Amino acid sequence: MKAARMHEYGKPLVLEDIPVPDIAEDEVLVQVKACGMCRSDVQLIDGYFRPYGDLKPPLTLGHEITGVIAKMGSLVPKGAGIVEGGHVVVAPGWGDGICRHCQVGDTQICPNVRWPGFGPVGGFAEYIPVPVRYVIKVGKQLAFEELAPLTDAGLTTYRGIRKLRDAGAVGPDRVIGVLGVGGLGAYAVQYARLLGGGARVVALARSEEKLAVARDYGVDHTIAVKDKSEADIKKDLTQAFGQGDLDAIIDCTGAPAMIQLGMSLLSTSGHYVDVGLVGDRIDIPLFPRVSREQSFHGSFWGNNADLMEVMALAAQDKIRHTIKTFGFDEVNTYIDQLRSGDIVGRAVMTF
Amino acid sequence: MKAARMHEYGKPLVLEDIPVPDIAEDEVLVQVKACGMCRSDVQLIDGYFRPYGDLKPPLTLGHEITGVIAKMGSLVPKGAGIVEGGHVVVAPGWGDGICRHCQVGDTQICPNVRWPGFGPVGGFAEYIPVPVRYVIKVGKQLAFEELAPLTDAGLTTYRGIRKLRDAGAVGPDRVIGVLGVGGLGAYAVQYARLLGGGARVVALARSEEKLAVARDYGVDHTIAVKDKSEADIKKDLTQAFGQGDLDAIIDCTGAPAMIQLGMSLLSTSGHYVDVGLVGDRIDIPLFPRVSREQSFHGSFWGNNADLMEVMALAAQDKIRHTIKTFGFDEVNTYIDQLRSGDIVGRAVMTF
Amino acid sequence: MKAARMHEYGKPLVLEDIPVPDIAEDEVLVQVKACGMCRSDVQLIDGYFRPYGDLKPPLTLGHEITGVIAKMGSLVPKGAGIVEGGHVVVAPGWGDGICRHCQVGDTQICPNVRWPGFGPVGGFAEYIPVPVRYVIKVGKQLAFEELAPLTDAGLTTYRGIRKLRDAGAVGPDRVIGVLGVGGLGAYAVQYARLLGGGARVVALARSEEKLAVARDYGVDHTIAVKDKSEADIKKDLTQAFGQGDLDAIIDCTGAPAMIQLGMSLLSTSGHYVDVGLVGDRIDIPLFPRVSREQSFHGSFWGNNADLMEVMALAAQDKIRHTIKTFGFDEVNTYIDQLRSGDIVGRAVMTF
Amino acid sequence: MKAARMHEYGKPLVLEDIPVPDIAEDEVLVQVKACGMCRSDVQLIDGYFRPYGDLKPPLTLGHEITGVIAKMGSLVPKGAGIVEGGHVVVAPGWGDGICRHCQVGDTQICPNVRWPGFGPVGGFAEYIPVPVRYVIKVGKQLAFEELAPLTDAGLTTYRGIRKLRDAGAVGPDRVIGVLGVGGLGAYAVQYARLLGGGARVVALARSEEKLAVARDYGVDHTIAVKDKSEADIKKDLTQAFGQGDLDAIIDCTGAPAMIQLGMSLLSTSGHYVDVGLVGDRIDIPLFPRVSREQSFHGSFWGNNADLMEVMALAAQDKIRHTIKTFGFDEVNTYIDQLRSGDIVGRAVMTF
Repeated sequence: MKAARMHEYGKPLVLEDIPVPDIAEDEVLVQVKACGMCRSDVQLIDGYFRPYGDLKPPLTLGHEITGVIAKMGSLVPKGAGIVEGGHVVVAPGWGDGICRHCQVGDTQICPNVRWPGFGPVGGFAEYIPVPVRYVIKVGKQLAFEELAPLTDAGLTTYRGIRKLRDAGAVGPDRVIGVLGVGGLGAYAVQYARLLGGGARVVALARSEEKLAVARDYGVDHTIAVKDKSEADIKKDLTQAFGQGDLDAIIDCTGAPAMIQLGMSLLSTSGHYVDVGLVGDRIDIPLFPRVSREQSFHGSFWGNNADLMEVMALAAQDKIRHTIKTFGFDEVNTYIDQLRSGDIVGRAVMTF
Repeated sequence: MKAARMHEYGKPLVLEDIPVPDIAEDEVLVQVKACGMCRSDVQLIDGYFRPYGDLKPPLTLGHEITGVIAKMGSLVPKGAGIVEGGHVVVAPGWGDGICRHCQVGDTQICPNVRWPGFGPVGGFAEYIPVPVRYVIKVGKQLAFEELAPLTDAGLTTYRGIRKLRDAGAVGPDRVIGVLGVGGLGAYAVQYARLLGGGARVVALARSEEKLAVARDYGVDHTIAVKDKSEADIKKDLTQAFGQGDLDAIIDCTGAPAMIQLGMSLLSTSGHYVDVGLVGDRIDIPLFPRVSREQSFHGSFWGNNADLMEVMALAAQDKIRHTIKTFGFDEVNTYIDQLRSGDIVGRAVMTF
Repeated sequence: MKAARMHEYGKPLVLEDIPVPDIAEDEVLVQVKACGMCRSDVQLIDGYFRPYGDLKPPLTLGHEITGVIAKMGSLVPKGAGIVEGGHVVVAPGWGDGICRHCQVGDTQICPNVRWPGFGPVGGFAEYIPVPVRYVIKVGKQLAFEELAPLTDAGLTTYRGIRKLRDAGAVGPDRVIGVLGVGGLGAYAVQYARLLGGGARVVALARSEEKLAVARDYGVDHTIAVKDKSEADIKKDLTQAFGQGDLDAIIDCTGAPAMIQLGMSLLSTSGHYVDVGLVGDRIDIPLFPRVSREQSFHGSFWGNNADLMEVMALAAQDKIRHTIKTFGFDEVNTYIDQLRSGDIVGRAVMTF
Repeated sequence: MKAARMHEYGKPLVLEDIPVPDIAEDEVLVQVKACGMCRSDVQLIDGYFRPYGDLKPPLTLGHEITGVIAKMGSLVPKGAGIVEGGHVVVAPGWGDGICRHCQVGDTQICPNVRWPGFGPVGGFAEYIPVPVRYVIKVGKQLAFEELAPLTDAGLTTYRGIRKLRDAGAVGPDRVIGVLGVGGLGAYAVQYARLLGGGARVVALARSEEKLAVARDYGVDHTIAVKDKSEADIKKDLTQAFGQGDLDAIIDCTGAPAMIQLGMSLLSTSGHYVDVGLVGDRIDIPLFPRVSREQSFHGSFWGNNADLMEVMALAAQDKIRHTIKTFGFDEVNTYIDQLRSGDIVGRAVMTF
């Protein structure tokens, strides 16, 4: 089968032909139909994650995976609707099933977690073996190229917004800020409206081009932050919402400057969720955090339950996409474009 | 001033002229502009509440109150925006401010609670004295006749739906059922959509006429339950949603038969909120409650924080109303109509 | 191997010799060292559950299971500490791993759940095959006869008390009531103290003999309810605690009369958890539920995360037991004693 | 009356005689019987808070206040148990009663909050006027010198631990770390045990002398962190608890180095609460926060409901104290001692 694999850090992927992988008795073989491309693919190639775990090449990249079940192991449970030919998305974060986090479904933070796309198997290949617990069945009417990014970009942001809601940070008298409107933020603004319980939503990003996507998706207001002072932004917020601060923030960037800006805008008892990983440091004043009782939450990818909820939204046609599809042979071109920040929305490889 | 007062249980209200009441230093005098009429007004006249507390006539009824501040006591805090001529709604459930429930804002369940409309002062009168803590300021652009029912019908259902959300019972893969579409249910269906986080919503009621309101407000499905068996209803749900049960239910009736039906439709780990008080008994099987881990929550009126959130929705023009206004002189006519179930939506007295 | 199996409803178990069962590749074979006897064993024999699911004999009863791993399938994950010779308890409620409830760990309410002791395999036998996800490893210093009842009696009550805590119903200014002090209640009173956050605890039961166990385990007060009126009990509570009602209740009986008593004692905003299944009906007044904002929660057995927490308490030696051990040959004698209510604490079969 | 007032930043308090203050109709006059001395008294004198709000002298310091009601305004509610001669503690954080935070009881984060001890009235004086909403009645058997520090040191830490519990961060299989064992930490270790639901507790502090207090109060383990590397501390934790990280942390210092150490010890999905304010900056790596889904919560003082719960613990004699009392004339001596870190436990002025 065709596979795009990383043989060396910092180098383009190698497009090659390798054997179709075997499956264990509790796995299924998924024929990949679409696989989204994520900033973390670029970060992986560029070595960003090496301090936290040095993965040994060759690696098959690609973790936003959807496709069709081609083969099933003997221990796949009957009656649960997992059948050959069925359409599925692949849940990320394959846990050991036994640790405390797995026991409540948070397999993505299992200490022994494995990730498709960060090891021998991934979605930039024609087939991938998947433990049956990590395939979620989906309706055949849904477009593969739209399903793919929902397993990371559209999942990570869902979990982040859900954390804001579950923390009590949303509601009709609140303003939710979405920081960054790239591949993730374009979904975050939609979830902010769907889960915000009547909250008003503002998107903040550097460029007007990306804010146009947010406006198209129905946010109440947008602010281009480039070259604006904190005071300017607060004034802008006050004009739009009658308050200069934000009650809930989802930061899709993780950039140090954005974290500092976001924290300075956070309201008393506000909640800040970070799902982005562009930078590597939080450096903020302590006193306002304590005296204003603010909370900061890291949120990482999503679990199966989150993904099932995202799929339910997709089945109801409640999620919009900004997608650019490309073919297997173009993978390195698109990696370069993503690295240089030239992609609006999400690029998705289709087979 | 004019006041419609109950001098005797079971008799029409007496329309009379009484002195404008005095205020204490921590109160304001509200000139009533509109006051909604509630089923509990009828129940009060008819003696439904007497077993729980025998209120002594004369009583000024009317508890869905909005108006204009006419006078302020000397201890009204400055700088909080409470000013003469300002528009306000009156929060129900005036607590002692000292008990455990008041300390977290749930003044409506204070053991020493007083209620406007259930004692000497009420909204079916031209003026009412209100402790300053129980007026919530509102924008002057909002229509009084729409504000009035938001202090009970539109508040009680908001709190009920919020309880379902906070219990984790809503979300994109869930179905919310609204039982009863009268004065309360017409708001409940809207909040189910606003706070449901992508949940689908079904309204169940006896009459098609009332279900038309629910459809108009955007529910996904309606079921007229009169003469339908439980099996019929489950089949109907399955056709509409792919599941024969309901993950979250708000019961706006409290009628024993509706509770039995609702409980039989409740899903595993489902949550049932009752905000209605038509009947007087819960009589249901125990085993499914335990083995399916279901929860039942009583929810009563709402607190100030709930009301502020409802007002934020109103300010955003996110709530629709089915209202019939009437004048002070028609109050007894409308009480009779409400008693006989002839009112669609909410009747509101305007001055 | 020896097995005590039910061949006919209403008849004594048959003690027989049957083949040691095979295991699947994702299972382990557990050599049973101890198995607790539960009221539901008696109820199963007596046909209590037949309306909800008619299990076909022969059935191997016994679901409070602990023992030693004798054999492992090839798909048991390495490095998770599951090894031959290791001591384990068997988690109940084997779910399909795929439904919404399983995805967050609540396998015990999976629609496709299987139960050891309610089908072909159970703990009143020398060996039992168990899916590896449902064994929890335990330290070898712990006594098997104490571990066994912690998988149901000591698990079900833990989950119930945890629900009360997570609902915000406990704390230093609250009183927790434990209704019934049999096999379950003896654990419930201990958890009420451990998880109550400083709450005071009162045990209510019919007999003084069982209340003695509660007193021994450190409750603040006990009340023998037999022949006492509701007013008497409220007076007794007031003398002990300065309040005549209970802020949080765990009902270990599920008896209709106890539910009625418990609900009449429940405070405003109180939470009532039922883990007992003696009766079959809830029949209580509606109005106080709503106007006092009370909640009723069914709680069923426990999930793996609950069981891991119970095991952590056991490892810290924080749980006390009232246990009577018996041998395999005495199983029918003990079933009869349990049916007649003659057992104080828990009877546990040891091999 | 006698009052110790600050007339100039950086100077000793002036002990003087000033008129007994008047009260408003919704206030009571409290005759101060004891007032604790807090690090923030020193910080106020030293100008630490000036960047956040420049309070104009003269200021009466002292905010841990308890005493006897000497006089009551006419609007004090009858029947709530507030009577002349009654013993009370003074809740901090006097809000406007109208903002969103006040509406749910969090008056201490009201945008218009006033603080006793940070303005014209305070506890280092014989009398103080207090809005009736901010006195909590207490039993006459309780010692004033023990009640005083429970309104800040013993309240702030209670709220912090409660936040950890409510976030789901405690339980029998968790380890709670208390960072710093000064005036606050000595209470935090006790609450960690009371509210930890079976969690094990470790205290970390620089000095062995302060850790002795923690051991005396029953923590499972202590670590003197001075001159120890992060690796040493993890090894020590692993020996004590079988895990090198902490599932829940309450930081009573707020010192930048302690925050960095604490964050490096925090487990996956761990929660970190900061109640301390020694330093002024958080500077920590971002990636582990996100990929391990950690949360940071600021927690500030406490609200009335928290204080009522603390008082309930005190009434049950469940809190131990390390207190040094001193007289009015010694106030400047004790301020100097506190500044130099020479006080173990809490210094309390008694009249």
